[in-house]
Amino acid sequence: MKNVNKNSDPKRKKKYEPPDSLTSVGWTEPHIITLADGNNPLLLDCGEELAPISVEYEMYGEMNSNKDNVILLLHALSGDAHAAGWDKKALEMGRSWRVDRPGWWDTMIGPGKALDTNKYCIICSNVLGSCYGTTGPASIDPETGEPYGMSFPIVTVGDWVRLQERLVSHLGIEKLYAVIGGSLGGQQALEWSLAYPDRVERTVILASSARLSAQGLAFNAVARSSILNDINFNDGNYYDRDQPAQGLAIARMLGHITYLSETAMRDKFGRRYRKNGNRPGFHLGVDFEVESYLEYQGQSFVSRFDANSYLYITRAMDYYDAADRGEGDLDRACENARSRFLLISFSSDWLYTPEQMKELTFALYRTKKDVSYVEIPSTYGHDAFLLEVDEITPLISKFLKGDTNHGI
Amino acid sequence: MKNVNKNSDPKRKKKYEPPDSLTSVGWTEPHIITLADGNNPLLLDCGEELAPISVEYEMYGEMNSNKDNVILLLHALSGDAHAAGWDKKALEMGRSWRVDRPGWWDTMIGPGKALDTNKYCIICSNVLGSCYGTTGPASIDPETGEPYGMSFPIVTVGDWVRLQERLVSHLGIEKLYAVIGGSLGGQQALEWSLAYPDRVERTVILASSARLSAQGLAFNAVARSSILNDINFNDGNYYDRDQPAQGLAIARMLGHITYLSETAMRDKFGRRYRKNGNRPGFHLGVDFEVESYLEYQGQSFVSRFDANSYLYITRAMDYYDAADRGEGDLDRACENARSRFLLISFSSDWLYTPEQMKELTFALYRTKKDVSYVEIPSTYGHDAFLLEVDEITPLISKFLKGDTNHGI
Repeated sequence: MKNVNKNSDPKRKKKYEPPDSLTSVGWTEPHIITLADGNNPLLLDCGEELAPISVEYEMYGEMNSNKDNVILLLHALSGDAHAAGWDKKALEMGRSWRVDRPGWWDTMIGPGKALDTNKYCIICSNVLGSCYGTTGPASIDPETGEPYGMSFPIVTVGDWVRLQERLVSHLGIEKLYAVIGGSLGGQQALEWSLAYPDRVERTVILASSARLSAQGLAFNAVARSSILNDINFNDGNYYDRDQPAQGLAIARMLGHITYLSETAMRDKFGRRYRKNGNRPGFHLGVDFEVESYLEYQGQSFVSRFDANSYLYITRAMDYYDAADRGEGDLDRACENARSRFLLISFSSDWLYTPEQMKELTFALYRTKKDVSYVEIPSTYGHDAFLLEVDEITPLISKFLKGDTNHGI
Repeated sequence: MKNVNKNSDPKRKKKYEPPDSLTSVGWTEPHIITLADGNNPLLLDCGEELAPISVEYEMYGEMNSNKDNVILLLHALSGDAHAAGWDKKALEMGRSWRVDRPGWWDTMIGPGKALDTNKYCIICSNVLGSCYGTTGPASIDPETGEPYGMSFPIVTVGDWVRLQERLVSHLGIEKLYAVIGGSLGGQQALEWSLAYPDRVERTVILASSARLSAQGLAFNAVARSSILNDINFNDGNYYDRDQPAQGLAIARMLGHITYLSETAMRDKFGRRYRKNGNRPGFHLGVDFEVESYLEYQGQSFVSRFDANSYLYITRAMDYYDAADRGEGDLDRACENARSRFLLISFSSDWLYTPEQMKELTFALYRTKKDVSYVEIPSTYGHDAFLLEVDEITPLISKFLKGDTNHGI
């Protein structure tokens, strides 16, 4: 990880401050808490028990005295607990990439924003198996004194949600005002509404579905193969040396293809060459702008993510199928939900397509749930849930305010 | 490459015979010819001259005395000259994978088929840079006595077509009755119609376009990265040792995702697990059927393809843009064409989409060419040009027979 000296680069230092804005949550700090120990391990879906488990989370806005204004926000594959504001401990904790950018959903969280911190208390925790403060493959296995690596147990979306429930209960919250997530975060929101039906009032699911498609499984398989095949992978034991950076970079490159629509790629890069007067350079290296973009995305990712975590989190993404709660029948799985639902998909999202979201909508509708579905026209592809802020803000804002779905 | 002993496996031996069918071209034999030497090197688009160049080709049906019944068939990325029938020299030439299957478009070529060998003489040659008999990175560089590896020059679709023109001229053919190709083969067909407008009477382009999309460029970049990152790649110098098999396998896995539509993947595999009573196996290895399929496709590919060739051919695919002949203007590029055109796309093809094919159709239409365009409804995705035989046979058959496009 690149070492950023905050004194040596005045420009960067200047940037590393919350904007002088009334809509920013400002400086944020991570909280770390132990939620499982030897006396109270977490029983995982794979059958193993895991302890100890630390969880990193952030919190924006004030919890009211009844603790009934809490929104639990769930993050996606490469996300973290730092959803809004400017991480005050970024440098101290070796997270230099946070210095010049706010949290991943900063456009949606803050005073007056969709997730209005004047009204709501927003909590976001890092998932089990990740590399951003919550226990994962890079954590020390107390039995060996070494990082878990590939001996870390397989974790699932169900495990994540059960761990989040521990956090929520620990904080004394009986019922969540809302659970909200996009992509893999949307599947956690869905799982919350099915696993803890009495503890969720509202569920907002964006750019997600009840399960990953066969094509999605296929992309994840290729991404993992690329990491497993890296010269530095060494069966996951690389924490005292170079990580399998190139394999992880390739996995990330592939991910980015699936996050952008074909239209977005065409609009953004087309077939333009990087140099040489827009003529071929006649070599096998980076020649097109789209190659340069992917290369950059891959390389910047490896400085902030752990390859083992990528393996584990994509596997959790593969395994999630909400219909499992109904023995393969999604309608049956949805029957117990008590929450109101707002489902939002994006027309050009081909990773979690509108068709898949409609499948979930229909299952909720057939089981007589209070569900609203909106398909937002967008050319951004899957990334739209991070980018179409103007479109989703009024929808989510209104849904959170109202006592019914009418008017959405 | 797996060594197949034709005597040891009676079942396999039985299969290794042309079917007793009136519509098969039966046994076939490759021809190899030198088309460039020191006195007559091929000037490549990259500026280098290449010699010697051997070309492997096959021929089905009889050339008539006027030599005006010849169809030049162009193959795609992983294709070869063996387009129909049963390769009599498969074992002798170490191409054991050909033993239990006929050529790649056998369903379309033979007596009474769309490319009717009772009427037409079909020629298919392997492209420059490939590993199926035509000079490529695995060939010996006469200057060093070693395989070219990465010192092989970058080749283009334009280079391929100029080399094919040498073959056609060598065989004494003045004008081709038709050029036909799918995918990357379709781009060669298009290039023929633009580079040699007076020597092509009919052009059939399937599942292709005037240029690869930004998304297509991106997939190729990831595929190549995977090969370049393989532990065995060794800067392309691996011919005396293990090839970068895993990297090539990953590239092929990724390719297969783009060849199948999402619907085809769902219909074929869905989210089914391979075993364990259709429950997760809780591991990072092959667990879903779609993973097993990709794994198989990847592994079987490495026994029959050369990783360096994959690098070079995907780059040729990247670089091709028919509009280059019109300085970026596709209409201008099409102006000189004299051929009649039949363009066929497939509704679920997302690698070369119907939209892209329509772009080419409109350019040909605007420049007043004789062009017919058909979009075939299909769930097969890009692979449809190999699979929708019943749909494309009457179209191509009629187009080849007629003197005009009317009635297509």
